[in-house]
Amino acid sequence: MEKKRILLLGSTGSIGRQTLDVISRNPELFDVVGLAAGSNADALREQALAMECQYLGLAFAPAAERLREECTQIGTSGSVEVFRGAEGLVEMVEACRPDLVVGAISGFSGLPSILAALEAGISVALANKEPLVAAGELVTRTAEESGADIIPIDSELSAIFQCLKGERSADIKRIILTASGGPFAELSAEELRSVTAEQALAHPTWRMGRKVTIDSATLANKGFEIFEMRWLFGVSFPQVEVVVHHQSIIHSLVEFCDTSILAQMGRPDMRVAIQYALTHPHRVVSSIERLDLAHSRPLTFAEPDVEKFPCLRLARAAGEAGGGYPVVLIGADQAAVELFLNGDIRFVDIPARIEKALDAHDGTAPEGLDDIRELNDWAYGYVTKLR
Amino acid sequence: MEKKRILLLGSTGSIGRQTLDVISRNPELFDVVGLAAGSNADALREQALAMECQYLGLAFAPAAERLREECTQIGTSGSVEVFRGAEGLVEMVEACRPDLVVGAISGFSGLPSILAALEAGISVALANKEPLVAAGELVTRTAEESGADIIPIDSELSAIFQCLKGERSADIKRIILTASGGPFAELSAEELRSVTAEQALAHPTWRMGRKVTIDSATLANKGFEIFEMRWLFGVSFPQVEVVVHHQSIIHSLVEFCDTSILAQMGRPDMRVAIQYALTHPHRVVSSIERLDLAHSRPLTFAEPDVEKFPCLRLARAAGEAGGGYPVVLIGADQAAVELFLNGDIRFVDIPARIEKALDAHDGTAPEGLDDIRELNDWAYGYVTKLR
Repeated sequence: MEKKRILLLGSTGSIGRQTLDVISRNPELFDVVGLAAGSNADALREQALAMECQYLGLAFAPAAERLREECTQIGTSGSVEVFRGAEGLVEMVEACRPDLVVGAISGFSGLPSILAALEAGISVALANKEPLVAAGELVTRTAEESGADIIPIDSELSAIFQCLKGERSADIKRIILTASGGPFAELSAEELRSVTAEQALAHPTWRMGRKVTIDSATLANKGFEIFEMRWLFGVSFPQVEVVVHHQSIIHSLVEFCDTSILAQMGRPDMRVAIQYALTHPHRVVSSIERLDLAHSRPLTFAEPDVEKFPCLRLARAAGEAGGGYPVVLIGADQAAVELFLNGDIRFVDIPARIEKALDAHDGTAPEGLDDIRELNDWAYGYVTKLR
Repeated sequence: MEKKRILLLGSTGSIGRQTLDVISRNPELFDVVGLAAGSNADALREQALAMECQYLGLAFAPAAERLREECTQIGTSGSVEVFRGAEGLVEMVEACRPDLVVGAISGFSGLPSILAALEAGISVALANKEPLVAAGELVTRTAEESGADIIPIDSELSAIFQCLKGERSADIKRIILTASGGPFAELSAEELRSVTAEQALAHPTWRMGRKVTIDSATLANKGFEIFEMRWLFGVSFPQVEVVVHHQSIIHSLVEFCDTSILAQMGRPDMRVAIQYALTHPHRVVSSIERLDLAHSRPLTFAEPDVEKFPCLRLARAAGEAGGGYPVVLIGADQAAVELFLNGDIRFVDIPARIEKALDAHDGTAPEGLDDIRELNDWAYGYVTKLR
């Protein structure tokens, strides 16, 4: 079997590093042809050396300039090419011509490069949720037109993707998304008012990046996944249920029209879903620890508390309203999470600010990527400036 | 879509009646062309009238004679044909030429008619375990040669069958069979000595026939399923694990080489697996009650206690020994269960008598159906005559 040539966008983040871990465990299967990060030039250079990688990208342009100079100086390779800025990542996709792009850039900013890959008919293993929430119709239409696949990396998405193998989407009755409930599931509404960013970053079951860990604590993350289900599997918003499952052992479930339910399970380790996305449609042996079901804790389930965690309700409302609302949701959430991580607002202000941004939106539907980007920036700015 | 023509063998038993319930809910999909039972002529006649069925069979010949007379007398149909005895069921398969045979005759006696169907290239939805345990190699080779499918009806088997859709069997790491643990899971070894047939027949989660309910209480049933996994899915005995799961919500699981696990779940209602076997490869809407996961009890798992329930260990040993041992297992278990149901032996004598029969077997491997039948009868007689 020929090696799969991988372009990894977002290589220094949590998903990026775990992706490189999976690739390192299967050197006979993969060739990393390109690596791109946000601004962490040092980490990127180290990865590039380890992977003997020719194409590098940095979203933060000044860091890219320095990296280019360093690469020349240390002479790692005369042929290393460094791409700069968001536009640079789009060029990078075209320069690399990989077999698979791994889209692991956090937030909305991963969208243009993912679209570029799909336009070029290159399949994308997609980790970040924001592109499908903000531009699900555009992203899936682009993939459909070029024949490229979108393979989800996120554990819940991967679970559904695996459960639907060999099934007809018309036979789906509902999708049941499991939510760990995050670190604050047991707190009262009053206690939630004083939680800190540090507490929110201590996720009980999953090891993830900062933004997605906060989104997980607010349940915004689970709301985003409803959009992903909508766009990847063609179900409607009401067909997607959320169930709190603290142990994160069942990663999600599909109920079919005949009441039969398929579930995907395992220890909460992102690398299983990452590896599946990389090796799809095949599976390969993994050396990571297996789930020992006979000795695992009881699996519990409960309804989510949307009063205490309004982000889930807001996401569903934005999704059902459609038009520009999903974009506003993404831009507003990005800003609110950043403010919370900086200590500028409280945890409970995250949904409050998102709701204000949704209320302030005039309802105009964006047309195309530029409109979407503009609306995202508007929502981000709106939430940042709120007093 | 043309109606699927069904021949139901074992129509008056628990699976048979539930199969007719599923068919009655989907009259546009199925046509019952033949019904066969053991000795309950009254129930069979009633079913035949309801289903307007032309071919009838009774394993107990005198009852068949009476049924034939009655059918003539009440003039339900001049064209009703009644087949007698085990040989009659084989002729019936040939006379009916159905699209699908549902094999729901309890015990070893279902084997010849199932083999006849598979030989004729007719797919079989198989509910009873004994044919695959006693003659797995013969049954699966017959199906392979004619191109007929064997579609499992049993819930655990159906679970694995559904989980493997679109997967490669080479990617299976292990199969995890769930066992409810039966009604006696919590009893001490001492308490087990005095349980009655009545107590054993009160299964906590599944509604099944008498023989399989007792097999379920002894865990022999779970041992038989290991054989079924072996023959239907090509795994080895050590690849099949058994996990006690009292709630019977997860019906079984497949762990793949990449540590990902797929599970099939639902309320413990046989009709889901029956319907799936009838409609496979499609699914159709079912009106039976769905699982409400958010309000279900915690799902628990534990290792089975093979000291208290030796049948599981005996079945595994018989399977790994191969040759004639699986046949002896089936014949001995049939006799022991009947003795227990008649109040002649205690619950704990069931495994003891099976073990004695296995020990007494000379190890000769049977060749072909006649040998298998003879060995089965020997084991049955041996256990019956033990003092």
